Amino acid sequence: MGIPGNAKRKRSGQEVYAAILAGGIGSRFWPLSRETTPKQLLKVVGDESLLKSTIRRLSPLIPAERVSIVTNARQAEIIRLHLLYGGDGKALSPGYIVEPVGRNTAAAIALAAFEVWRKDPEGVMAVLPADHIIKDGKSFRAALKAAIAVASEGHLVTFGIVPTSPETGYGYIKAGKKTVSRINGHTAKRVDRFVEKPDIKRARKYVADGSYFWNSGIFLWKAGRILEEIKAYLPDVYNALSSASSPAEVAEAYLSFKDVSIDHGILEKAKDVVVIPADFPWSDMGTWSSFSEILDPDGDGNIIKGRVVDIGSENSIIFGCDRAVATIGLRDFILVDTPDATLVCPKDRAQEVKDVVNILKAKKYIEHEHHRTVERPWGSYTLLEQGEGYKIKKIRVEPLRRLSLQLHKHRSEHWVVITGTARVQRGEEVVDIAINQSTYIPRGVKHRLENPADTPLEIIEVQNGEYVEEADIVRFDDDFERK
Amino acid sequence: MGIPGNAKRKRSGQEVYAAILAGGIGSRFWPLSRETTPKQLLKVVGDESLLKSTIRRLSPLIPAERVSIVTNARQAEIIRLHLLYGGDGKALSPGYIVEPVGRNTAAAIALAAFEVWRKDPEGVMAVLPADHIIKDGKSFRAALKAAIAVASEGHLVTFGIVPTSPETGYGYIKAGKKTVSRINGHTAKRVDRFVEKPDIKRARKYVADGSYFWNSGIFLWKAGRILEEIKAYLPDVYNALSSASSPAEVAEAYLSFKDVSIDHGILEKAKDVVVIPADFPWSDMGTWSSFSEILDPDGDGNIIKGRVVDIGSENSIIFGCDRAVATIGLRDFILVDTPDATLVCPKDRAQEVKDVVNILKAKKYIEHEHHRTVERPWGSYTLLEQGEGYKIKKIRVEPLRRLSLQLHKHRSEHWVVITGTARVQRGEEVVDIAINQSTYIPRGVKHRLENPADTPLEIIEVQNGEYVEEADIVRFDDDFERK
Repeated sequence: MGIPGNAKRKRSGQEVYAAILAGGIGSRFWPLSRETTPKQLLKVVGDESLLKSTIRRLSPLIPAERVSIVTNARQAEIIRLHLLYGGDGKALSPGYIVEPVGRNTAAAIALAAFEVWRKDPEGVMAVLPADHIIKDGKSFRAALKAAIAVASEGHLVTFGIVPTSPETGYGYIKAGKKTVSRINGHTAKRVDRFVEKPDIKRARKYVADGSYFWNSGIFLWKAGRILEEIKAYLPDVYNALSSASSPAEVAEAYLSFKDVSIDHGILEKAKDVVVIPADFPWSDMGTWSSFSEILDPDGDGNIIKGRVVDIGSENSIIFGCDRAVATIGLRDFILVDTPDATLVCPKDRAQEVKDVVNILKAKKYIEHEHHRTVERPWGSYTLLEQGEGYKIKKIRVEPLRRLSLQLHKHRSEHWVVITGTARVQRGEEVVDIAINQSTYIPRGVKHRLENPADTPLEIIEVQNGEYVEEADIVRFDDDFERK
Repeated sequence: MGIPGNAKRKRSGQEVYAAILAGGIGSRFWPLSRETTPKQLLKVVGDESLLKSTIRRLSPLIPAERVSIVTNARQAEIIRLHLLYGGDGKALSPGYIVEPVGRNTAAAIALAAFEVWRKDPEGVMAVLPADHIIKDGKSFRAALKAAIAVASEGHLVTFGIVPTSPETGYGYIKAGKKTVSRINGHTAKRVDRFVEKPDIKRARKYVADGSYFWNSGIFLWKAGRILEEIKAYLPDVYNALSSASSPAEVAEAYLSFKDVSIDHGILEKAKDVVVIPADFPWSDMGTWSSFSEILDPDGDGNIIKGRVVDIGSENSIIFGCDRAVATIGLRDFILVDTPDATLVCPKDRAQEVKDVVNILKAKKYIEHEHHRTVERPWGSYTLLEQGEGYKIKKIRVEPLRRLSLQLHKHRSEHWVVITGTARVQRGEEVVDIAINQSTYIPRGVKHRLENPADTPLEIIEVQNGEYVEEADIVRFDDDFERK
């Protein structure tokens, strides 16, 4: 593998790629986020997950074929199934760059940059977080287009969001005086310095000053250019990834990497870093409080969803689900109620939700892992009840989809159809089962559940056995190529 | 029917009766209290409901045969099943005095007094709320014994609790100077006046004064004596009930009664009202905040139950259930999480929970009616899931109990045994069904579910039909004499 860095500036016609960083869980969004439903897969606004929105927002400029999702193996599989089969039926097939472990953004970007550079030594790459909110896709793409042009010239481009309030939760980018480039009304200025999350006093000063911008975590550069800088400031990372020729070698290299962000590790030191001020509405959805930025509150300043009875709360975020939630006199509070877990905290302590998740893990609770309803490529299942030797699920199979051909070594299953028609393969026989009919799958018998119709199928499954965990499944054939 | 009132004073040897007022729901304790699980049936401390504790606390002095529960018809049936079959297996069979509608305590006590007086014109009666907490039964009975003696002399006796703090949630009784009677260290003083719930300033003054006591709502008198006073101050009530000779006539009379408490309607005006100061620990459990009086808080002042992860809360009451609950930085808050409903409010607004229940009703939510798990004399059922045309329940049948012989006109049922053995009558056949076996009850077929063993039986029931509500049940035979 070669050494990049000597690409000429101002070359035009190169392809543009995108690396979407999607390695995190976003545990500050518990109980909505879970290990198997990371924040980027949540439908925060509208019917689309944050990640799908991120990909689709790019697509007029960067089609999904040139987009790579950078994440770990477990999440890559979850994301793959989500993008292919989740929800709206419009499949997305980006590439996947699988990190063996998480080592912050510098390593992830280095890995992605090598992949782009090896394909296209002149390629420009956009780096984007998977889980931010950008409401105005058109403005975003106009800024992106300008940034691509500036990056093509060889600059390292950061997107600086024009601040609308003295946020203390964001890092800031201080623009220098010097204008490096001007394209279609967008100005690229030399970056003076990167500023850590400020206190409220300094934040107010930054907003008033006019030359400070929120650091959006969105970057553009030629892959070769960022690799030059990585070579200079993180030579260990550069050398290890440059010479790694197999996933095993990448994995070994990763173990030695330090946890370094691209901002600290590279951009604060690199030459020729520029900022393009962008004024589209943006939120990094850092904590539950971020909902106050993206949703319109009612007359009392509340954002209320679900079956909620409230008496006199103010400036609060109250999210219910199918359960009844009653609140009285909350002030600047957050309440999130999900079918299996509830969170209550003052807005100004929302960042501590991350600590809650760590405590849940330490206590060996399970509510940080899965939701009560688990999405699957064929539909979903909802855990209704679990006890010693049994488990009850409601299973929903989307039209014309089917589960894998499988068997269980430790449990038998009773199925009762409550909606639609089920086609059941049991051993050698195949039968169709209508509403109010049932069947029995003995332990050890190969079986498959299929929805042959164009309306949803729902069944109740009663599992009986000594061991009724998901792990007891032997798959023989699967439409979704799951391992 | 005769006219009481001319019973001689100082007659000894008469029987003592008790009327327990149990007409309320205690909706301030939602979501723990529900219409079908009123506050008095809650197990607030220990394993016994407040009502059972109230009855058992009396029993060394007043056996259950001389206790009457005064309530409405719907609650009488709920209470009857609870006292006969609920929980610990020790059945209680008090009498029931059924009010056609609720008209506050004056009417309820008049109705009960007539019943006692007709049985025993010299009878003494204790009047007690069903849902208060008295931790020290022995002290209570010592005071009760003294009060019985004083009441036997013809006085109208109130129990005044020696205040331990300047409570603003209780009414107070101001004792006069004059001591009417002294028995076993208990003193009965003439009542000077009844005082409404005070503000905190006056409450402090009352506690410091020493002659003010909390009005416990516990009263003792000869039935004939209170009827004399009712005749004098609520002659309409007296006359109507005196001449009513059938439940229908009582019902008609009640409709004309005004909503008047015994305190306002009678005791504030009557002659010869005395107070016996009592210093046993007592709480009327008026709101969720009352838990701070009866349970010991941890080092941060919190009372926490259930699967709760808390970071830095203080002086709060946090009750979880089987779901995970996470709280951060609550100050003087109440959080109550039940399987189908959550309540969050500051302690000082706990009285508004009653308003929440009214809003739930107005919105036609169902979470004020039933719990997700509904107690039945044969065991209980838990609603797992409900949807268009189906309902899923987990049914638990206690050892050697059985449901009624019944049929449903609009639904069929699939049963899968998950614990124990079920004896199933289906039409003419009777079969035993073991764990992991199932059966099907078609619509319109007479059936019965029985637990023939001495260990619990649990089944999963999947109901299918156009109409899957509890009302669709035709009962042919029932061990519990339910209507």
